[in-house]
Amino acid sequence: MDLGGTKIHAALVDARGRVAASHRTGTDIEGGPSKAVADIVRCVHACAPDLAEVGAVGVGVAGQVDTKKGIVRSAPNLGWSDFPLGERLEQVLGVPVAVENDVRAISWGVWRHGAGRDVDDLLVLFVGTGVGGGIVSGGLPITGDRGVAGEIGHSTLVQGGRLCTCGRRGCLEAYAGGWAIAARAREAVAEDPEAGQAILDAAGKGEVTAVVVSQAAADGDPLAARLLDETARCLGSGLAGLVHVLNPRRIVLGGGVIDGNPHLVDIVESVVREQTIPIFSDRLEFRGSELGPQAGVIGAASLARRRLQERSAA
Amino acid sequence: MDLGGTKIHAALVDARGRVAASHRTGTDIEGGPSKAVADIVRCVHACAPDLAEVGAVGVGVAGQVDTKKGIVRSAPNLGWSDFPLGERLEQVLGVPVAVENDVRAISWGVWRHGAGRDVDDLLVLFVGTGVGGGIVSGGLPITGDRGVAGEIGHSTLVQGGRLCTCGRRGCLEAYAGGWAIAARAREAVAEDPEAGQAILDAAGKGEVTAVVVSQAAADGDPLAARLLDETARCLGSGLAGLVHVLNPRRIVLGGGVIDGNPHLVDIVESVVREQTIPIFSDRLEFRGSELGPQAGVIGAASLARRRLQERSAA
Repeated sequence: MDLGGTKIHAALVDARGRVAASHRTGTDIEGGPSKAVADIVRCVHACAPDLAEVGAVGVGVAGQVDTKKGIVRSAPNLGWSDFPLGERLEQVLGVPVAVENDVRAISWGVWRHGAGRDVDDLLVLFVGTGVGGGIVSGGLPITGDRGVAGEIGHSTLVQGGRLCTCGRRGCLEAYAGGWAIAARAREAVAEDPEAGQAILDAAGKGEVTAVVVSQAAADGDPLAARLLDETARCLGSGLAGLVHVLNPRRIVLGGGVIDGNPHLVDIVESVVREQTIPIFSDRLEFRGSELGPQAGVIGAASLARRRLQERSAA
Repeated sequence: MDLGGTKIHAALVDARGRVAASHRTGTDIEGGPSKAVADIVRCVHACAPDLAEVGAVGVGVAGQVDTKKGIVRSAPNLGWSDFPLGERLEQVLGVPVAVENDVRAISWGVWRHGAGRDVDDLLVLFVGTGVGGGIVSGGLPITGDRGVAGEIGHSTLVQGGRLCTCGRRGCLEAYAGGWAIAARAREAVAEDPEAGQAILDAAGKGEVTAVVVSQAAADGDPLAARLLDETARCLGSGLAGLVHVLNPRRIVLGGGVIDGNPHLVDIVESVVREQTIPIFSDRLEFRGSELGPQAGVIGAASLARRRLQERSAA
């Protein structure tokens, strides 16, 4: 399950990460958590009419999740806080349920079935509206004390810098997240409307968004290209700092901003290499994520499988 | 063994981290790695005339160390690069030898025998001339792909900021390391010699160093106090970013700059709490290191014990 603010994406996934069946439905925000539980159960039945086919269920949720307890601590897009999603779903479905932050779920999918599958020390960075990630170290996913480790978007890029949605200043996400790219573009357009004309044209009657900036850049607009280039440089600087902390073997980059501008991976890589002590970068590799739009459900399924193995071992 | 640029500190340490015997000798830099090997062997014999008492030897080295292979990759204070210290010592001593960066060795000591001993998710930060650290996650030390993870001093604090000794810009160490405190103090004194008079007085005929700044602050000088306050704020901001990445249960602070100014721990803690998403900070604890000047040898010994257990298991 991939549970977001606009849709619920469900899939039946096998041990190799292949999708056997899938189903999508809109998220009913007003119905609250109870309606979401009912909708998720309906999705499970739609993907697997015979529940015996389902060994366990994994749910990736856009928000902060206490993975050990299966509690969604805070999901602003859903309007939830402190909801015991795992427990409620286990009561109804009668199978083990794993709940995780959506980008962390994707990261585990990347590690088990995607571009990170053959390494033990992996850093996954997804740049969409927000910036999220996941870390594998020594062959084990890093969860942290409360199960919320991996919020790479809220690592510091500039002390006292731009205000982030989390309330802090200077987070990587406040420079490189889709919302931040849009904000930086609007500021640049306001500052120099002539240079910003191509971005305004690309927006048409709509808002200036990260997608609009990407379109303008693809059409050759120098300001849009500069904004994306700066974004990649911010990602590279932030990652260089984390490379010294975590010493990964491979960095996998994905998410809408990267998928829409794949050339950014090369810029990120060159900045990381330029800003990293040699022993940290000489074996370091960079990859795109490979899993495409199924990343969320494949990742959630790989978490479900892990939960099932944990329960079997206990 | 704690092998630094000025001295070799050796100790015989038991399973509980208690020092049974210790020995110190000066580091003979000109003698190079071969002389250091001979001096280390001499120290081992001085601490344990009966070599049967020594199950394994751990060496903490000020520099970048490939811990898996026991190779000192780069130790600028010693003038070494790519020296297979572990292999050479094993040949002479006939016992397993573990080699690690000195601050990482201290971190494992803090985790096994010091202020971090009862937690599974630990972040250790030592602020001396440089800023180093170590990470334990899920009850396992994080080593990274090349065994060099934990260089927290080279996480990013300010993109494109102050130049660091590693050649990058904006590293946490370039603001909060002892050498950086001294550099910032010299700049502040040059900018406003009147305000800087107390620091110059404290330096006497010597250089302005971090120790001098600490003395001036202890004597009530407002500029020195401000420089140290800023140092703690930089450490807090840097740690807040890492707290979102690693979600530790406890942060242990140590090293000369902290030990000389213990009130800084409270400032660091308040800045981290102020800049951290609540679920990351509500169970987070802060501690001093507890191990004192023996931290290096106790940590190295705990690494030696781990190496011995690994060899026994293999």
